[in-house]
Amino acid sequence: MVRWEPGTRERLQTAALDLYLREGFEQTTVAQIAASAGVTERTFFRHFGDKREVLFPGQGEFEHGFLDGIAKAPRGGSPLAMVGAALQSAAAFFPEDRHEWSRKRARVILANPALQEREQLKLSALASALAGALRLRGVQDPAAILAAQSGVTVFHVAFAQWLAEEERRPFAQIQQDVLRELTALTRAP
Amino acid sequence: MVRWEPGTRERLQTAALDLYLREGFEQTTVAQIAASAGVTERTFFRHFGDKREVLFPGQGEFEHGFLDGIAKAPRGGSPLAMVGAALQSAAAFFPEDRHEWSRKRARVILANPALQEREQLKLSALASALAGALRLRGVQDPAAILAAQSGVTVFHVAFAQWLAEEERRPFAQIQQDVLRELTALTRAP
Repeated sequence: MVRWEPGTRERLQTAALDLYLREGFEQTTVAQIAASAGVTERTFFRHFGDKREVLFPGQGEFEHGFLDGIAKAPRGGSPLAMVGAALQSAAAFFPEDRHEWSRKRARVILANPALQEREQLKLSALASALAGALRLRGVQDPAAILAAQSGVTVFHVAFAQWLAEEERRPFAQIQQDVLRELTALTRAP
Repeated sequence: MVRWEPGTRERLQTAALDLYLREGFEQTTVAQIAASAGVTERTFFRHFGDKREVLFPGQGEFEHGFLDGIAKAPRGGSPLAMVGAALQSAAAFFPEDRHEWSRKRARVILANPALQEREQLKLSALASALAGALRLRGVQDPAAILAAQSGVTVFHVAFAQWLAEEERRPFAQIQQDVLRELTALTRAP
C-alpha cells in the first residue's frame, strides 16, 4: 500500500512555485522541486503528471464546482441566476488560505505565454461546460452560450480583483459584486 | 507611380482562400497564390505582408469600426448602449457580399490551431480596446471591462450564427438579436 504523507502535495506546490518564481518555469526541473520539498521524484509523480500540472491542479474539481452549482440551482430561475449559483458554488475552491499561493501562481503564468494560453484554454473549456449544463436545465442557445460566457467573464474579472495586493474582500463577495455590476450595465453611468 | 489594378486585392484573397481550402494553409505558398490570381509575387506583397494576413485583413479598420461607434454613441447612455453602438458601427465591416468568403475563411481557421489562436488574440485585443474606449467615455472598472467583454461575446456569437449555412438574417440584425438575448438573461426561461 502506498502511503501519502499528509501535506506532501501542498509542500510540493509551494516548493515548485518558489522555484518557478526564482529560476523561471522553463528552467526548473522536477528533480529540483522534489529535492526542495524533501521527497523523491517518484513521490512528485504520484501527485502531479508534470511540472505544469502543479499550476493547474484539480481541473476536474474546479469545473465540477461550477457545474454542481448549476445542477442544484432552484427551478424557474433565470439563466443568469443559475450562473450566479455556479459562481457561488465554485468560490469554495478559492479560500483565503490559497490567496498568497494564487498571487504567486499568477505571476508565474504572466511571465510565460504558453502558460497563459493554457489558462485561456481552461476558461474556454469552462465556458463550454457551463453552456452544456445550462442546456440540460432547459436554457436554449444563444442564451446558454451567452450566460456561460458571461459567467466566465465574471469569474475572470473577479479573480483578477481578488489577486490585487490591496484587495481584502473574500472571493465569493467579489464575485457577487462583479455579477451585480454586470446586471447593472444597462443603467447609465 | 505604382498602379493598383482595381480588384487585385479581392482576387488575391479569393485565390488564397481556395488554395488554403484545397491544399491546406501550411502547404500553400505565396508564389502559388500570386500565380493563381494572375499577378507577380511582388504584387502580392504590395497588398499583404504574408499569407496569414490574407485571412486577417484590415485589423485596424475592424477595431476602428467598434471604437468609432463608442466615440459617437449618444451622451448619457448606459455602458451596454455604448457597446450596442459599437456593434452596429462594426457591422458595416460584414456586408452580405463577404458572407461566402467569411464562411470559407472560418473553415480554413478551424483546420489550423495556430490560426485559431490568432483569431482568439484578435478578439482579446478588441476587448482591451473597447474597455479603453469606454473608460474615455466615463465608464469605470469593472463595468468597462465587463461591458467590453460582453460586446466581444455578442460579436463572437453573432458571427458564428451569421456563418451558419441556413442563416439568412443580415449580420447587423443578428447582432441586435443576440444583444437583446444578453439583456434578457436575467429573465426566467
